Amino acid sequence: MNIDCPLPADIEDTIRLGHGSGGELSQNLFRNYIYPYIKNPWLDQAHDSALLTIKGSQLVFTTDSFVITPLFFPGGDIGELAVYGTVNDLAMSGARPMYLSCSLILEEGLPLNTLKRIMASMGRAAAQTGVHLVTGDTKVVERGKGDGLYINTAGIGVLEHEQEIGPGAIRAGDRILLSGDIGRHGMAVMASREGLSFDTSLHSDCAPLHEPVRDLLAAGIQVHCLRDLTRGGLATALVELANARGVSVEVQESAVPIDESVEGACELLGLDPLYVANEGRFVVFVPEEEEKAALDILRCHSVSAGSQRIGLVTATGRTGVILKNSLGCERLLDLLQGEQLPRIC
Amino acid sequence: MNIDCPLPADIEDTIRLGHGSGGELSQNLFRNYIYPYIKNPWLDQAHDSALLTIKGSQLVFTTDSFVITPLFFPGGDIGELAVYGTVNDLAMSGARPMYLSCSLILEEGLPLNTLKRIMASMGRAAAQTGVHLVTGDTKVVERGKGDGLYINTAGIGVLEHEQEIGPGAIRAGDRILLSGDIGRHGMAVMASREGLSFDTSLHSDCAPLHEPVRDLLAAGIQVHCLRDLTRGGLATALVELANARGVSVEVQESAVPIDESVEGACELLGLDPLYVANEGRFVVFVPEEEEKAALDILRCHSVSAGSQRIGLVTATGRTGVILKNSLGCERLLDLLQGEQLPRIC
Repeated sequence: MNIDCPLPADIEDTIRLGHGSGGELSQNLFRNYIYPYIKNPWLDQAHDSALLTIKGSQLVFTTDSFVITPLFFPGGDIGELAVYGTVNDLAMSGARPMYLSCSLILEEGLPLNTLKRIMASMGRAAAQTGVHLVTGDTKVVERGKGDGLYINTAGIGVLEHEQEIGPGAIRAGDRILLSGDIGRHGMAVMASREGLSFDTSLHSDCAPLHEPVRDLLAAGIQVHCLRDLTRGGLATALVELANARGVSVEVQESAVPIDESVEGACELLGLDPLYVANEGRFVVFVPEEEEKAALDILRCHSVSAGSQRIGLVTATGRTGVILKNSLGCERLLDLLQGEQLPRIC
Repeated sequence: MNIDCPLPADIEDTIRLGHGSGGELSQNLFRNYIYPYIKNPWLDQAHDSALLTIKGSQLVFTTDSFVITPLFFPGGDIGELAVYGTVNDLAMSGARPMYLSCSLILEEGLPLNTLKRIMASMGRAAAQTGVHLVTGDTKVVERGKGDGLYINTAGIGVLEHEQEIGPGAIRAGDRILLSGDIGRHGMAVMASREGLSFDTSLHSDCAPLHEPVRDLLAAGIQVHCLRDLTRGGLATALVELANARGVSVEVQESAVPIDESVEGACELLGLDPLYVANEGRFVVFVPEEEEKAALDILRCHSVSAGSQRIGLVTATGRTGVILKNSLGCERLLDLLQGEQLPRIC
């Protein structure tokens, strides 16, 4: 976890890369500079998407902009990331993803062939996940005022079940299931960006997560909360949820799967894999009695074949995420203070 | 109207500023590089937003990214533009705007005070138009990879009437009403950008248009088509609609109101005001017998107080937009070939 050096006052008053980390600075930015001006009950849901009731139907609405560099990375590209990312945010509300918008900001000089490859990738990802890109927009900025292209997708999904899924439904005793090994996306992007020698075996985990979620709900599993692990990784997701609900969480370090290629790359670069970004992993909070059935369903899907229980919600009232190692030592996880890997999604 | 010079082949294969003009190049880009990969029936609606039926409810979904420079201009700023622009796209489908998303791409070094002013402006614009900014996202890019900030808004509106409103409903004989004088937004931005001396009297027309539309529909006026005039101005909007429906349109040049400050600035810069961007003007297609009642309603709202009939749909079968001047001379309007004013919205 990087700690920012003290900065001169004029830098303190400007946007820094850390404001995009998903960590402490991002939360401060939202809390102090965005929320006060637009506040409403939907923003208080503390989830990645808003639950809307329109003419009696329950819809979910979400948005993400994608500024990842490079545009193509081992295991994916910005186009499929822009589709999967929004599909996943919808799925994490327990919604069936249906319609996406697609807005492009193109930099003058971008090769048209690059655009073509990325649009083809978006089209494939949409077909694979059963969503339609129904509306869009294209803007062009001058050379040096962009970085190839940025993509925004917003998405609409429908809720077809009666469960409350979100931080507010988390209960003491809930088991926390993780869908697979962590840190692949961040380290694959980092490797391709830096041209590092460990890049051969590292591929992003970039993938859609709506199918395991759909099957959990179809089987009637009581799902208390779902959260995909993106910027800030597993640690940030758990700290955010613990803070939002006011609960303490205990995670067994040895239960968190990390591939040795990710572990090696992280060691080399001095990064903590718990904070490295993922784009195809999620956590599920379920009551103890649902653990086995939920794991059985998750393990039927290749995207969540490596699902494991990694911890549990120990108590309400106190807030915090404690990581226990095999020797019984405890470490309190917190939000990232600065920026670990900029432009990762 | 600028005509691009012939370009070397390698430039032909890359994104140019003209691809963002809303004119011929934008349409080619969409037709050849975007549509083929994501095509679906909603994109064939040829409207700025998609009409969705979800669980029996009729919803409208739209998106726009805003990359205007400068961020603050006479009569508005990027924040209110991002709210009004999406509110207006929803209104042009005859929908009641309800929910917006807000996604920010911030450049490292942006003063936090600038962000604060823009978010306050978004908040005011949302309150004024009765929409809620319910979900969002924030990304940060390095210095020199952005231009202060870009904003994407996507919007959801509900249809509360049974009329078909869109290019497909345009009929021969329809009267074309224009809600006010044209070209203010483009020339106000241009003036502030270039520090031109004519800037004192020029203010953007940036404004929400949902109220006059709501009142037209509430009064039971048969509205065949609505279109706000943004990039590419009045001429581009009419050419697009004529092409989409396969009709010919005749416009009386003398009936199109243009303020003398706009006219003067356009003359100075060699621009055609018919192609200059607006952000608070729209055209309404109504049957002849509805013209008077529609104008009466439009003129009750300050934003459309200057409404006028400017032309009519002369025939179906042939396609084209003809501008007639007071001497009876005719000029065929076409799409802009290149870029007149980049980064205008």
